Amino acid sequence: MDFAISLPDPGLTAAIQHRIDRKTKPLGALGRIEALALQLGLIQQSAAPRLRQPHILVFAGDHGAARAGISAFPQDVTWQMVENFLAGGAAINVFCRQMELALTVIDSGVNHDFGRRDGLVDAKIASGTANYLETPAMSAEQRDAALARGRELAHALAANGCNLVGFGEMGIGNTASASLLTHCITGIDLAIVTGRGTGLDDAGLARKHGLLAQAIARGGRPADPLGALAEYGGFEIAMMAGAMLGAAEKRMTLLIDGFIVTSALLVAQAIAPTILPYCVFAHRSKEPGHTTQLAHLRVDPLMELDLRLGEGTGAALAFPLVQAAANFLNDMASFDSAGVDDMV
Amino acid sequence: MDFAISLPDPGLTAAIQHRIDRKTKPLGALGRIEALALQLGLIQQSAAPRLRQPHILVFAGDHGAARAGISAFPQDVTWQMVENFLAGGAAINVFCRQMELALTVIDSGVNHDFGRRDGLVDAKIASGTANYLETPAMSAEQRDAALARGRELAHALAANGCNLVGFGEMGIGNTASASLLTHCITGIDLAIVTGRGTGLDDAGLARKHGLLAQAIARGGRPADPLGALAEYGGFEIAMMAGAMLGAAEKRMTLLIDGFIVTSALLVAQAIAPTILPYCVFAHRSKEPGHTTQLAHLRVDPLMELDLRLGEGTGAALAFPLVQAAANFLNDMASFDSAGVDDMV
Repeated sequence: MDFAISLPDPGLTAAIQHRIDRKTKPLGALGRIEALALQLGLIQQSAAPRLRQPHILVFAGDHGAARAGISAFPQDVTWQMVENFLAGGAAINVFCRQMELALTVIDSGVNHDFGRRDGLVDAKIASGTANYLETPAMSAEQRDAALARGRELAHALAANGCNLVGFGEMGIGNTASASLLTHCITGIDLAIVTGRGTGLDDAGLARKHGLLAQAIARGGRPADPLGALAEYGGFEIAMMAGAMLGAAEKRMTLLIDGFIVTSALLVAQAIAPTILPYCVFAHRSKEPGHTTQLAHLRVDPLMELDLRLGEGTGAALAFPLVQAAANFLNDMASFDSAGVDDMV
Repeated sequence: MDFAISLPDPGLTAAIQHRIDRKTKPLGALGRIEALALQLGLIQQSAAPRLRQPHILVFAGDHGAARAGISAFPQDVTWQMVENFLAGGAAINVFCRQMELALTVIDSGVNHDFGRRDGLVDAKIASGTANYLETPAMSAEQRDAALARGRELAHALAANGCNLVGFGEMGIGNTASASLLTHCITGIDLAIVTGRGTGLDDAGLARKHGLLAQAIARGGRPADPLGALAEYGGFEIAMMAGAMLGAAEKRMTLLIDGFIVTSALLVAQAIAPTILPYCVFAHRSKEPGHTTQLAHLRVDPLMELDLRLGEGTGAALAFPLVQAAANFLNDMASFDSAGVDDMV
């Protein structure tokens, strides 16, 4: 699959910066909100960027390895939480309602039959991945289908007028998959990028370290993103990576959540490095491997709130800052229009 | 003046924490948003805290010392920016509209006659403070009048049903006043708590250091908050301190902005240390003295966005996080209600 992502044309930089600098405030006084405004302007190729129909996509999938005990929760929690999303009772529902974000849940491969449901897209590749302790998590065909389906989903959002998409996920065992992918793609020691996930105790964490080392002993360390994805990925992670690439193709703004979402971005960025200027990093997760990922990408997230929930909750919580960046650029008075004296 | 601020009763802690812990998420997974929910619950003495009629108060005042060149902007910018607030064109207007926050501007002592205006409260103590390079900035009577008027304003908000107030300010020269107050109250070296304000260059910063040292050589270093306030305060800072104390008396949540607002809180906290549990710290400003203030109070703000604008913009930008804390506590499903398996 070829993804056609061109870098934003920097030609408008001076014009956007001038508009930022003429607003009634000291130069640079809105700090990172100003940098964000410039980024939005370049992504949209406009000195008056607007966020249209912002949307959170939550990709859900099950992991064969979850049955080996790599999570503090049983695998059934994946489908139970999807039901919770559809009923409007999860944290991501609360935050999307507050921030006026649309929310769609994608069944990328949950081990459960949901039937047809409002707010749920059936994009199931299979009922969970295979157990990477024994065999690759997915075939090359499954991986490519997940990437293609993700891309389609992003293109469909764009066709409906959406220009900002936030990414979230649900899948018991998916911090383990994210750790393996991060290790493969960055080359950083597996132990450094393996954490407690949803809340393993010391014994559980030791067990997770052992199981992941066992996975690598079996499957090796493919450094190419497609190889790593087939070996250790989740369907939700692969489909997210495809959706990220598809969103950047359509020049949408990508709002990146925590550790698992960033593992999908590592895959996407290894496939198409030009995706990065389209990404806004919402927060630094409490999961220690997230800091490793952010350092690898050389990016600095907007917030640090010790979140480790997933679901896209960090992306939703950061959304008002992105909206604020567009709003001040469009709605603030300039020194000229307000009759305020300029810097002496 | 006696301020009657009682500490929140900790008796409800276990009940609120239990409600937080039964939500459909791993224990502690919402990080600081959970801590904020507990704080709101204790302030409101309820396991179902609600934010009602949240309001930003922007206190404006002029500083006699501004004429000596302690700011990059001329004094007229204070009243011009107040006009900008009243016309809806400033950053704080944009952010309050976005966050659905009410906004009122308080003329605590601007050197300008605004007449009667919608959205502006005439609480002018005088047309700017005296120049603290020559004489105390205000008399004891003026200081006490400012504190009393601030308290009245907060009590009036509470009487109208508001239970969260964010603080902002406008006043050319008021970072200098905030530096002097911070030095007096914390005892930390004046040079450490003096910064570039709205954007002084190196020469301007050197001049500011010299002028502030000259002020201390004249007026000394009163360590008591009332003495320091009369010597170096602004009317907007004094009135904010009174409003903070009045708001805590009424068990409101106080949303604290940056360096100047925190200097008012240092004064208020020195008068009544029990104010602190009512305060939510929005952000860490780029002004270096803010970090000193936060360390003195032993608090950690929610965000760090390199803001140095004032007006309460940081408070407005952090407001959605406070709202999110109340919302998840009230609106998320519990493990029991959602039929999701608990931690194994």
